[in-house]
Amino acid sequence: MCELLGMSANVPTDICFSFSGLLKRGGETGPHKDGWGITFYEGKGCRSFKDPQPSSRSRIAQLVKNYPIKSKVVISHIRQANRGGVSLENTHPFTRQLWGQNWTYAHNGQLTDHEKLPLGRTLPIGETDSEYAFCWIIEQLYQTYNEAPKDMLLVFKEIASYAHKLRQLGVFNMLLTNGEYMMCYCTNNLHWITRCAPFGQAQLIDADMVVDFQKETTHKDVVTLIATRPLTSNEQWNKMHSGEFCVFHLGKRIL
Amino acid sequence: MCELLGMSANVPTDICFSFSGLLKRGGETGPHKDGWGITFYEGKGCRSFKDPQPSSRSRIAQLVKNYPIKSKVVISHIRQANRGGVSLENTHPFTRQLWGQNWTYAHNGQLTDHEKLPLGRTLPIGETDSEYAFCWIIEQLYQTYNEAPKDMLLVFKEIASYAHKLRQLGVFNMLLTNGEYMMCYCTNNLHWITRCAPFGQAQLIDADMVVDFQKETTHKDVVTLIATRPLTSNEQWNKMHSGEFCVFHLGKRIL
Repeated sequence: MCELLGMSANVPTDICFSFSGLLKRGGETGPHKDGWGITFYEGKGCRSFKDPQPSSRSRIAQLVKNYPIKSKVVISHIRQANRGGVSLENTHPFTRQLWGQNWTYAHNGQLTDHEKLPLGRTLPIGETDSEYAFCWIIEQLYQTYNEAPKDMLLVFKEIASYAHKLRQLGVFNMLLTNGEYMMCYCTNNLHWITRCAPFGQAQLIDADMVVDFQKETTHKDVVTLIATRPLTSNEQWNKMHSGEFCVFHLGKRIL
Repeated sequence: MCELLGMSANVPTDICFSFSGLLKRGGETGPHKDGWGITFYEGKGCRSFKDPQPSSRSRIAQLVKNYPIKSKVVISHIRQANRGGVSLENTHPFTRQLWGQNWTYAHNGQLTDHEKLPLGRTLPIGETDSEYAFCWIIEQLYQTYNEAPKDMLLVFKEIASYAHKLRQLGVFNMLLTNGEYMMCYCTNNLHWITRCAPFGQAQLIDADMVVDFQKETTHKDVVTLIATRPLTSNEQWNKMHSGEFCVFHLGKRIL
């Protein structure tokens, strides 16, 4: 199993606080020692930091933790390998170009018989079931829409139908974004929370850290976090149901 | 104009020394203040560090300079924007998946009328002529070979024919790799050097730094560097001719 972390916000927001909690689970408070990755969007561009080393010991993870890269959309993942060795090419998140957009994805769970799903030009580079499923999604999307449809909600409903299929092959918890919309899909373990005014204090579960969001934000800010398990102990996270999906835009749930 | 830096080696090698020299040109000894990027391969995976900030002031660049990520194949670029604004999506190197491989590319120069080249599914995300040309190359390659041919030299000869076409549209100096082979193509400004035993000392042009490669290497190491302008003052760099291309594999020139 792995852990996912995603963010959707209406203003560029730093994810240092939540990422600090996640990092601890990478070999310290959790068993996810087989690498970690994080992708930040800035406009249409995105940048990923990845390491096959445990996040709790990674120097690059320390940089990311201490360097407040502000972004409206972030996907992060820490890995406990089951399918595919511990290597850079097997480290999430994965990114592919579709319709002139960067699509980024991370998966928690395990699939069987996914090799029977047909792929086209979008091929996996590593050996994980996760990347295979992502390539299938991107290929299916391209076969359905040669270019981005005006109504992007159609796209996410379409992706939900693919996700339902993947759930029949095992456990499929997913974060997926095109840099503007953030979609999450739950099989058995995914939680989200939307923070907006009036902001309060939050206490991390995995580290002795408290943040007072009132000091860090303006009253217009809307920030949603999605995580495998709640990251804070004193807030009410929404637990997703099996087969449920959400789409967030600028921090707000729109589907 | 921009500056390119590439490496091909037969053992994982750190590029800190050469990268230190290049960084100085990013806003200090050179005018290339509009961002920088570097891509390291590790097996089939690769990781990129990028920043639209000047490399001489970028904290991420400092990390890369001080953190010896060892790799057999590296491509780096510092940018002086001409086509496309200063943004992450316009920052080289660019990476796309082809045949289940990560292909990475950086360009120095400027093109006109490149928009007339037909694109397919491989679309640019930013606005640069450079990324456009890269997408065209990848698309042409896929149209020519649906899967990777056994003889990869055929592929690079094919790419050279595309590069000749691009050279007719302006200045096209290029580095391109699939993580195993490193190709460079020259219009007007590209140099390379192969270092092997007996190793000597090298003095950087852009910084007061000397390295004694004999202390850093074994007698079996072969390391080739490719750069827009020579990075060291006391070594003999090979100046490429207009229309010339090279392909390196494990540090050795093979084409």
